[in-house]
Amino acid sequence: MGSKRVLIVGGVAGGASCAARLRRLDEQAEIYIFERGPEVSFANCGLPYYLGSVINRRSQLLVATPERFRDWYRIEVRTRSEVSRIDRANRQIEVVNVQTGQKTVETYDALVLSPGAAPIRPPVPGVELEGIFTLRTLEDADRIEAWIAEQTPRRAVVVGAGYIGLELAENLLRRGLDVTLMEKLPHVLPALDEEMVIPVEEELRRQGIEVRPGCALAGFEPGKSHRLAVLTEHGDRILADLVFLAVGVRPDVPLAKEAGLAIGPCGGIQVDDQMRTSDPCIWAVGDAVEVRDWITGQPTLIPLAGPAARQGRIAADSICGRPSRYRGTQGTAIVQVFDWVLACTGANERKLRQCGIAYEKIYLHPPHHAGYYPGATPLHMKVLFSPDDGRLLGAQIVGRQGVAERINVLAFALQTQATVFDLEEAELAYAPQFGSAKDPINQAGFIAGNILRHDVSVAHWDQCSPNCLNEQGEDSRPVILDVRTSSERDAQAVPGSIHIPLGELRTRLDQLPQDRPIWVYCGVGQRAYYAARILQQHGFQAANLSGGLTTYRMVQKK
Amino acid sequence: MGSKRVLIVGGVAGGASCAARLRRLDEQAEIYIFERGPEVSFANCGLPYYLGSVINRRSQLLVATPERFRDWYRIEVRTRSEVSRIDRANRQIEVVNVQTGQKTVETYDALVLSPGAAPIRPPVPGVELEGIFTLRTLEDADRIEAWIAEQTPRRAVVVGAGYIGLELAENLLRRGLDVTLMEKLPHVLPALDEEMVIPVEEELRRQGIEVRPGCALAGFEPGKSHRLAVLTEHGDRILADLVFLAVGVRPDVPLAKEAGLAIGPCGGIQVDDQMRTSDPCIWAVGDAVEVRDWITGQPTLIPLAGPAARQGRIAADSICGRPSRYRGTQGTAIVQVFDWVLACTGANERKLRQCGIAYEKIYLHPPHHAGYYPGATPLHMKVLFSPDDGRLLGAQIVGRQGVAERINVLAFALQTQATVFDLEEAELAYAPQFGSAKDPINQAGFIAGNILRHDVSVAHWDQCSPNCLNEQGEDSRPVILDVRTSSERDAQAVPGSIHIPLGELRTRLDQLPQDRPIWVYCGVGQRAYYAARILQQHGFQAANLSGGLTTYRMVQKK
Repeated sequence: MGSKRVLIVGGVAGGASCAARLRRLDEQAEIYIFERGPEVSFANCGLPYYLGSVINRRSQLLVATPERFRDWYRIEVRTRSEVSRIDRANRQIEVVNVQTGQKTVETYDALVLSPGAAPIRPPVPGVELEGIFTLRTLEDADRIEAWIAEQTPRRAVVVGAGYIGLELAENLLRRGLDVTLMEKLPHVLPALDEEMVIPVEEELRRQGIEVRPGCALAGFEPGKSHRLAVLTEHGDRILADLVFLAVGVRPDVPLAKEAGLAIGPCGGIQVDDQMRTSDPCIWAVGDAVEVRDWITGQPTLIPLAGPAARQGRIAADSICGRPSRYRGTQGTAIVQVFDWVLACTGANERKLRQCGIAYEKIYLHPPHHAGYYPGATPLHMKVLFSPDDGRLLGAQIVGRQGVAERINVLAFALQTQATVFDLEEAELAYAPQFGSAKDPINQAGFIAGNILRHDVSVAHWDQCSPNCLNEQGEDSRPVILDVRTSSERDAQAVPGSIHIPLGELRTRLDQLPQDRPIWVYCGVGQRAYYAARILQQHGFQAANLSGGLTTYRMVQKK
Repeated sequence: MGSKRVLIVGGVAGGASCAARLRRLDEQAEIYIFERGPEVSFANCGLPYYLGSVINRRSQLLVATPERFRDWYRIEVRTRSEVSRIDRANRQIEVVNVQTGQKTVETYDALVLSPGAAPIRPPVPGVELEGIFTLRTLEDADRIEAWIAEQTPRRAVVVGAGYIGLELAENLLRRGLDVTLMEKLPHVLPALDEEMVIPVEEELRRQGIEVRPGCALAGFEPGKSHRLAVLTEHGDRILADLVFLAVGVRPDVPLAKEAGLAIGPCGGIQVDDQMRTSDPCIWAVGDAVEVRDWITGQPTLIPLAGPAARQGRIAADSICGRPSRYRGTQGTAIVQVFDWVLACTGANERKLRQCGIAYEKIYLHPPHHAGYYPGATPLHMKVLFSPDDGRLLGAQIVGRQGVAERINVLAFALQTQATVFDLEEAELAYAPQFGSAKDPINQAGFIAGNILRHDVSVAHWDQCSPNCLNEQGEDSRPVILDVRTSSERDAQAVPGSIHIPLGELRTRLDQLPQDRPIWVYCGVGQRAYYAARILQQHGFQAANLSGGLTTYRMVQKK
């Protein structure tokens, strides 16, 4: 048997990982990478920071060069080579040199598709006007740099406030532009639930970015004082010299589709858990494929670099006859916005509701390290779990420090199908600069465990209708009880709530009704838990309003 | 049935957690805490930083006051109350008021012992001299503060370089003292293996601390120019105005012992997994008890705040008839030394060897976040795992940033009995400031997984006898092959190694012997892995020298 001939279409993340792994597994294989662009394996997650001059040199973004692929791996990289057609019957592809237009035909034993995803350009009027960019490749960045140098824009509009949109907005501001950030959905960073991103929207505004959630793009017109006017569905005109479209990406599937490969319900290339397409000689990896959502089990599109690299390895294993399997994608992600860090893993509440998956949720706001050591800042955490067995379903964390530490533990917990009871028992690193004897992860476990063991009922602010915050009316509505100190209450109190400080609760039980639910709150939920335990043991129907006034403030601002 | 009467001896960490949890579980119980000192529930992990004025106010260290226990929990705290005797037959304790000497007798239904551990004062000549301190309680700190204010010492010697010793040395330097740090064992921070702490010993010296590993204390003498002379077993005299003994702690068991409770082989109070002692009405928690080592299964003493708090909760559960179990202690810990952070979880290599547990080890030195984003600093990681099934056994990480993120994931992985294959599949948070598409955790999984799948053999520098670094001699000795570039090799090379850059390896295979093992190294182990794969597939007996020249430097300095 001669050596295998493996052709890889696309040399970023998934394709590059696959190629390198293939060589390590099979020294004899012939391996080729075809890349439409002039570079392979560049760090596209760094592009916003390159625009913001945080990353100074273009060369820093080149993870591997064609020379390195040749010298280290004996892999031939053909840049500026677009694969235009797959002839599955003959196991051949047609390659077009994008500079000369010359066509060649290459045969394969195995073909790996890693075409990635293309930024969506919404089909609105005026979208073809000059000054409207997307940022996905180094060439995009080069074009934008040249354009900025020539045009010296002053006002930028970023359309879409996902990961890239947020990073772009910050980096354009860093460059000295006035920035408006538009988002069609009601809040920035739709990967998280609405109440969780409130501190970040506030921070964006404090930094001088105009944030417009719930603001859908209607089109563009040429402007006068500024080059462009961005039209919104509400009829506003936002003036801009420069516009970035960051409204998401779409799997790049035309080649696969034209070849008759199965496309999944979300529009990505369909693969099995060995990353094999509907053709047994063709594999596909990265942003172009549909993966199984680790939580819901549904097919989904989750374009992330880590999963793409993992898929590349698995495709290589499969091509070499190894039994590796891709377990699905959790959607673990993190983004920094000025001093704030936002991170998530697993499903958010919106998705669980959409999929009809039963869940309970908790909020907590612990300091990121021991409160007695200077510099502690709060973490805002939301943890979603199964009310049946306590299995974790998802988590979101927003804070200034200590976010990555906790989301990574929760991500690993999701992977191992851990429960909130496992979080209670976690033995994490504690020194006063790094955590607490009861780490935020433990605290999340305690709070959720208490609910599942029926030690305390949980209530949520979004279950309080405006009326139920009022003491009058029907008896069945919950009484909202504030157990903080008087001075805390003077600063802010939930309208319609009644007040008994925790220290006085045991002696003032007669002031509370036995026939109505009592929903207790404090600052973050700890004293309210103690109060709820006291009340429950005295026969009251008590519940802890999860996360206390801190959650209330986040939910109120929605 | 009347209400339960629970007495708790010791109000820090374990005792305080137990008391609070008891109240939440049982509103009717009578709960008393007896504390020898004047305060309950103070943050003793903060004491070194209080001495260094990083924590400014004494009150910040008071986690909870007797008033709070009374108001929130209806728990009575009796400070300055020493429990002098347990009368198990009558379920009574004798309590001495340490100020008045007055004795009282209290009866119990359940008794919880949380006496903690006492700092060891080695019985060497002169140990009773003035100016020789231990730091365990707030009172210790008060005494030291007063003494420093009065005596204005200039030179301090810290005996013992464990967590507390290291923190003390840094904080005394911060106060402007000249500091010498002595350690009997061959290296600082004996919780980690020797080669891992090298960067930190260098840092301590760079900061101006005199570090003396392998230096055992022989005694003290009064000095002349300085108050004291510290005598070492090597016959040196180190002058000091102030000495801290930080040579470890010993479980405080006299009360338990005198009452006839079972004491374990390590000298701690013996408890079952519900924290119950040999007397069914007496529980014990915290630094005074022996726990099961999560990795080795052996009884052990691991005095840490997190486990103590967890044990307190479990004792409370058990007293209230709940089935909670303590799963054992991993020994997860973290300490900062100037800009360096050292962390560990599970067993170290020394312990595995002592216990005869089969293990394999790997070293890796990845950047703490994407190398293309400014500010990446190396993590030095050592991961120990079972050669049979890949189960994790322990991990150590040393670095400047990103240490807590990774040790916490590995700690949780140990808890869930995860394997190195699970680390390969971990989906962790990646943005250029926080990680890499292939996170250091994934990389550890890949490296270990490659070994277990026999894709590459691993070799270690400490298996190279001085002779085997020499090319001459017997044929069976390994050839050491350097696959770095010529300019890298010019900077430093392992003596006796031969040199073929990775890019030239395929064309120069004829220069290598087929009948001798070839141990390959590069800078950190990545290129050497590629090289070893090439060699292995061409029939050579190749192995990757784990962690490359970076590990070599650490091991050489041992």
